[in-house]
Amino acid sequence: MTGNDGNERTDSQDAGPTAGPTAAQDRRPALGVGMVGYAFMGAAHSQGWRTVGRVFDLPMRPVLAAVCGRDATAVRAAADRHGWAAAETDWRALVARDDVDVVDICTPGDSHAEIAVAALEAGKHVLCEKPLANTVAEAEAMAAAAERARAHGRVAMVGFNYRRVPALAYARRLIARGRLGALRHVRMTYLQDWLVDPAFPLTWRLEREHAGSGALGDLGAHIVDLALHLAGEPLEGVSALTETFVRTRPLPTGAPGGLRAPGGTGRGPVTVDDAALFTGRLASGALVSFEATRMAAGRKNALRLEVNGERGSLAFDLERLNELSFYDGDEPAESAGFRRILVTEPDHPYLEAWWPPGHALGYEHTFAHQARDLVHAIASGTEPEPSFADGLRVQRVLAAVEESARKNALYTLVHTPVSP
Amino acid sequence: MTGNDGNERTDSQDAGPTAGPTAAQDRRPALGVGMVGYAFMGAAHSQGWRTVGRVFDLPMRPVLAAVCGRDATAVRAAADRHGWAAAETDWRALVARDDVDVVDICTPGDSHAEIAVAALEAGKHVLCEKPLANTVAEAEAMAAAAERARAHGRVAMVGFNYRRVPALAYARRLIARGRLGALRHVRMTYLQDWLVDPAFPLTWRLEREHAGSGALGDLGAHIVDLALHLAGEPLEGVSALTETFVRTRPLPTGAPGGLRAPGGTGRGPVTVDDAALFTGRLASGALVSFEATRMAAGRKNALRLEVNGERGSLAFDLERLNELSFYDGDEPAESAGFRRILVTEPDHPYLEAWWPPGHALGYEHTFAHQARDLVHAIASGTEPEPSFADGLRVQRVLAAVEESARKNALYTLVHTPVSP
Amino acid sequence: MTGNDGNERTDSQDAGPTAGPTAAQDRRPALGVGMVGYAFMGAAHSQGWRTVGRVFDLPMRPVLAAVCGRDATAVRAAADRHGWAAAETDWRALVARDDVDVVDICTPGDSHAEIAVAALEAGKHVLCEKPLANTVAEAEAMAAAAERARAHGRVAMVGFNYRRVPALAYARRLIARGRLGALRHVRMTYLQDWLVDPAFPLTWRLEREHAGSGALGDLGAHIVDLALHLAGEPLEGVSALTETFVRTRPLPTGAPGGLRAPGGTGRGPVTVDDAALFTGRLASGALVSFEATRMAAGRKNALRLEVNGERGSLAFDLERLNELSFYDGDEPAESAGFRRILVTEPDHPYLEAWWPPGHALGYEHTFAHQARDLVHAIASGTEPEPSFADGLRVQRVLAAVEESARKNALYTLVHTPVSP
Amino acid sequence: MTGNDGNERTDSQDAGPTAGPTAAQDRRPALGVGMVGYAFMGAAHSQGWRTVGRVFDLPMRPVLAAVCGRDATAVRAAADRHGWAAAETDWRALVARDDVDVVDICTPGDSHAEIAVAALEAGKHVLCEKPLANTVAEAEAMAAAAERARAHGRVAMVGFNYRRVPALAYARRLIARGRLGALRHVRMTYLQDWLVDPAFPLTWRLEREHAGSGALGDLGAHIVDLALHLAGEPLEGVSALTETFVRTRPLPTGAPGGLRAPGGTGRGPVTVDDAALFTGRLASGALVSFEATRMAAGRKNALRLEVNGERGSLAFDLERLNELSFYDGDEPAESAGFRRILVTEPDHPYLEAWWPPGHALGYEHTFAHQARDLVHAIASGTEPEPSFADGLRVQRVLAAVEESARKNALYTLVHTPVSP
Repeated sequence: MTGNDGNERTDSQDAGPTAGPTAAQDRRPALGVGMVGYAFMGAAHSQGWRTVGRVFDLPMRPVLAAVCGRDATAVRAAADRHGWAAAETDWRALVARDDVDVVDICTPGDSHAEIAVAALEAGKHVLCEKPLANTVAEAEAMAAAAERARAHGRVAMVGFNYRRVPALAYARRLIARGRLGALRHVRMTYLQDWLVDPAFPLTWRLEREHAGSGALGDLGAHIVDLALHLAGEPLEGVSALTETFVRTRPLPTGAPGGLRAPGGTGRGPVTVDDAALFTGRLASGALVSFEATRMAAGRKNALRLEVNGERGSLAFDLERLNELSFYDGDEPAESAGFRRILVTEPDHPYLEAWWPPGHALGYEHTFAHQARDLVHAIASGTEPEPSFADGLRVQRVLAAVEESARKNALYTLVHTPVSP
Repeated sequence: MTGNDGNERTDSQDAGPTAGPTAAQDRRPALGVGMVGYAFMGAAHSQGWRTVGRVFDLPMRPVLAAVCGRDATAVRAAADRHGWAAAETDWRALVARDDVDVVDICTPGDSHAEIAVAALEAGKHVLCEKPLANTVAEAEAMAAAAERARAHGRVAMVGFNYRRVPALAYARRLIARGRLGALRHVRMTYLQDWLVDPAFPLTWRLEREHAGSGALGDLGAHIVDLALHLAGEPLEGVSALTETFVRTRPLPTGAPGGLRAPGGTGRGPVTVDDAALFTGRLASGALVSFEATRMAAGRKNALRLEVNGERGSLAFDLERLNELSFYDGDEPAESAGFRRILVTEPDHPYLEAWWPPGHALGYEHTFAHQARDLVHAIASGTEPEPSFADGLRVQRVLAAVEESARKNALYTLVHTPVSP
Repeated sequence: MTGNDGNERTDSQDAGPTAGPTAAQDRRPALGVGMVGYAFMGAAHSQGWRTVGRVFDLPMRPVLAAVCGRDATAVRAAADRHGWAAAETDWRALVARDDVDVVDICTPGDSHAEIAVAALEAGKHVLCEKPLANTVAEAEAMAAAAERARAHGRVAMVGFNYRRVPALAYARRLIARGRLGALRHVRMTYLQDWLVDPAFPLTWRLEREHAGSGALGDLGAHIVDLALHLAGEPLEGVSALTETFVRTRPLPTGAPGGLRAPGGTGRGPVTVDDAALFTGRLASGALVSFEATRMAAGRKNALRLEVNGERGSLAFDLERLNELSFYDGDEPAESAGFRRILVTEPDHPYLEAWWPPGHALGYEHTFAHQARDLVHAIASGTEPEPSFADGLRVQRVLAAVEESARKNALYTLVHTPVSP
Repeated sequence: MTGNDGNERTDSQDAGPTAGPTAAQDRRPALGVGMVGYAFMGAAHSQGWRTVGRVFDLPMRPVLAAVCGRDATAVRAAADRHGWAAAETDWRALVARDDVDVVDICTPGDSHAEIAVAALEAGKHVLCEKPLANTVAEAEAMAAAAERARAHGRVAMVGFNYRRVPALAYARRLIARGRLGALRHVRMTYLQDWLVDPAFPLTWRLEREHAGSGALGDLGAHIVDLALHLAGEPLEGVSALTETFVRTRPLPTGAPGGLRAPGGTGRGPVTVDDAALFTGRLASGALVSFEATRMAAGRKNALRLEVNGERGSLAFDLERLNELSFYDGDEPAESAGFRRILVTEPDHPYLEAWWPPGHALGYEHTFAHQARDLVHAIASGTEPEPSFADGLRVQRVLAAVEESARKNALYTLVHTPVSP
């Protein structure tokens, strides 16, 4: 045991700073969660839902009510593995369950709109994975549904989980406080390398009909949302280049599943981008650059960003997610420098509930933080962040990127409807 | 959602790589866990026990049976918070429970020996926090009890959780494979800073009767265990300096708890070391240096190590726990360099069960890994690592350090009894 | 003294690895250098010329013959300070000197063409600071003059000195050997911050008539040259955004010099860009991004680049110029990682002449390396790199950038004339 | 050209910030330098002497008068190569020259005392490479000679050049200003790897009679001097372990030189340490650790240090010598972190004379800085730092280290004579 909690020898006298009421006294309302999909994102969301109530003080008591997937045996196994009480094979049945208050959508983008709208119309709260949808039209329908549901006290959140990395939440706090002054540059990259190998198979993520786009929607959506969130202002327009370096790939082997006929041994066309490179201007005139790629050898999860303002700068790398680099331009030149802040102090966002300073958090903690914030929003009836409107805003940027790419990189305004 | 799992659109067809049998079919035996203590370590162990079966394929099914603490209300709250089915106020009652197969000891060091020996004699498996004990005599008694229990198929493990940081488990693998050749230097530091402030109060960790020693037992025990584990050979002897920079501190306020009369507003003497600095030689002749301190301003959890061998070197920093730095001396000089390995590949220890490459793990994952390895050891009846004998070995080093410090740093052999 | 030269106790027996013939025996031809301008670049070039013959074995003997500037007193002082034998106040007189074989042009861009063409026509070799010129037309005239001079055995080099950072010369070597495979991404930034302060005065570098452009020509020219040099292929086209964040600045105080009337206390318009952001495609289809700015708070000289190929990646930061980061994708995933190569080994470019491994070089060494390579080119009559043709190529990219910026970021082809 | 000097277009009007008087007006006295030895250190000192007057404003005009070595041909070649006007083959002749005011001793340690004492007695100033001598007795004689010479206005300096790394000079400034508060820990390592290969030959540096000691005197002397200099207080005592991992090595081939009979093909014993590990206490009670080794695979020149005080910390790595890492404990915990200060601002020590911010200096610059400070000390008649008394102080620590190592690491007081 290693620690700096000065009073640990109180194991039998007090319950520590995080303890809640005993079970018998727990009069907090239950909040039943129903999750659709249980692959990578499903596993991450499950860990978030299982953990959130053990770590944070919450106004409601999350219950892992049911999980949904098409194969009865497999979804039953997933329910057991991840701790969900029930299993469903039809998402409509899940949405219809009385014990489900929140529908958590972890499926590919082409099914988001249908499920989310139905769930909202059925009076459920919704948490939907990003990107919000595959098209602006779908995203508009979802945002409209969320708007209507708000009138009935239902909330909808989109899963841009990286906003909940403590270092990035703290970055937003510093910018909002004016510590950077007027922004000049926002520089966003999200680099991965899992498509470098040309023998990597043609999975659904490489097919436009299912994934909507490639690196753009998968990685680019994250950095667009973060840029807008951190800067706190909209993107005026973009100029974009996209590229598909490997144009055909081997069809995947094995049972491919419902949406795709069993593959032979041939190759198929990659119908999404491998990389997207775009620049733009924020409303304030700051310049922004974005790069999303799955072809950067050696970069495993390099969401890297830098923001430069008149008074200072911030830098971050998701591969070192417990750290934020901050340059305070108000310091004398002699002693100024980018400082590596370990974002693990009790004062930092979300950290009051975790471990002592210097004890690292990981990727999955963002899902517990997301669940925490959603529960608070539901309990208080306030609009969660990022809302479906935020998700739509990102979708409009992605659409402008694709339009600009088609128009030879011509600077293309991001559509911003006039509010009624 | 961001990922490189090529086949995620299988949400309704298959259960992903981690799914187990459905509940109805789950014929795995239950493994009841009873935990004593529920402060910082208790919270971390709880998270480990709650998570391990959700992530890893295990031969047994861990059940969080009961938690123990002296205050009935507080322990009940802790049970609810952390997910334990029952609460006990007497550790003897916990040990006596039929539904408890493993006793997990998360109390300060002065109670380890009594609880562990009783639990082993009662036929329970034991997981005991580090350091194993406050004295060599206690540790010997514990190791002897573990030895006797082994004859009855019971196992005992000491909680040097940092062995389970994937980067360090991988470091051990590289050394064991001979990638470093003959070792020349092992350099270990564990730096924290929570005692820099002289106004920090006199908690139990600063009292010899409860904590045994200061930075030496708290931090030094970790780096001694790691050095021996990584090198794979014993320490011949040590030369040590220790220091208490702040000799008195304010008594803690508030209800101090059972073992200490309510404090006044005065000050009390610090009876443990603030820092310990020691050097030594491994059996092979390699030189080793150790530094443990809680007075290194700005270092929050800087367990840093470097190992230099004839063929290469390794370096690690717990503040960046997903990374291992490796210098391969077999490379041509032109292209050789310390490489930063992100230890998040499926081939890396423990990683097959977690997230895609580049998705960081955190501090608490070590407790899930520890639980995983303990469950496997119990199921297979094999000696877990680190065993109580390993814990005793560390205790003997700590004793030699204290003896050397008393003898003006004279090189002092570490006692190594001849095996019968 | 710290070192690993095993045989240093030979101080009286041998002259070490770098010694040349004694002066009496030195039959190497002298190479007279005449330098125009003596501010920042002049000081750096002077250090290069003074040092090159002391460190490298050269086929000719560089002589610092004369330096030129308009103010007789000041240029005389500069000559004494920097070690030039004579001082001239008219560049035509310098070019006409018999003891000047090489004219080294360190003036602002608007005078490059006139001086360089005259010097070449007078039968001198020329080294010209970058960017080659302020316009494509000037650069074309210069390249044509260099082409004509080549027929008479005279050579011309442009001062893209960063090619001579050993780590970047080594990077080029690795790419040329195919260690990265087919390139996918080239990512270039050059960030400085000296214009962040809006009170910084309106110097010649902020006036289009003298500087040609702002960050684009000053910083962007370097990264365009490096990108083309490292990739070894031309840039097909670009899409660009440029911005001037601070539109007016205080006029400089003090005697402003010949080209500008003494300033009052007012403000004047900034007529160049503060930042330029552009993307493009290499001939092979690789995507390239560039960012040049003087408004990135805290970034003092951050020429950072990353190149990703099918087989590996490279990264570099001029603020740590002795290091190159290399990811070898041929390594097993388990042990792969970006390695930090200290580019100070005898096998590395230029390093055979300097200090033992690990002993850092600095910024100014690039000028000694540049001088070395120029002397060798002159002695052997081979075309130096980068040639004026290379400088023209960069100029055409800068022109395309400005054209694209005027056309709303429309993708604009870089003009590449058909060779006769 | 890349820069932030706003007024560079003044090439013909002013001479820039570094210009001195014209040659005709230069009434500064000449300062003739005579250097003994011309291998690695001789080359570095030559570069320092050649450069210092070109960069810094000095009260005297350094002249490279003569260099000395035993082989007439070789020393003549070295003189030409490095720019020394004359060559001598007997150091006594060099000392006797009228045009030599400063004797710069760059020979191995066993000749330092004889040359330095003779030079001081001949009325010369002396700069002597480190370590000052091979024994305390020699160092005492040298310090006494320096003391006597001071009465006649002659000064003596020892070449601990790393004090002149700007980042370390700035570190000293921060500590002296109290920015770290009371010191708790000083942690010094100096790691190299050139002896890792057991086939590396038995050069003079591995022979006690010439080198005095191994890593201890070569590398350890530097870190002892730096620790004392940075902390500003003496070392009370030390506890030490030393080791020679490779006990015999091949005899060097080739003409071995005057002091050693030509080697055969056999092996000889290494008579110095490969590594030295020692701990100690400063007078204030702060704990200090030192490690010097030439067996740390992959560490080329890793002089790394960290100083922790009550109010903050500093860290440095010679492989990144333009950076200083500073933790300011007065910052709020939320925004505190180690900041990477690029020590290239005009306010930083020695930097006013060099390049714009962010333009790196290298290893050799320390020798120009050393020369600068020595010239100022000579001109002003003040005691230079580090003096021979400082060199003796280091020698006494090294002697205590060797004594402690012989006594099984027993804590051994550093001899400190009572001042009269």
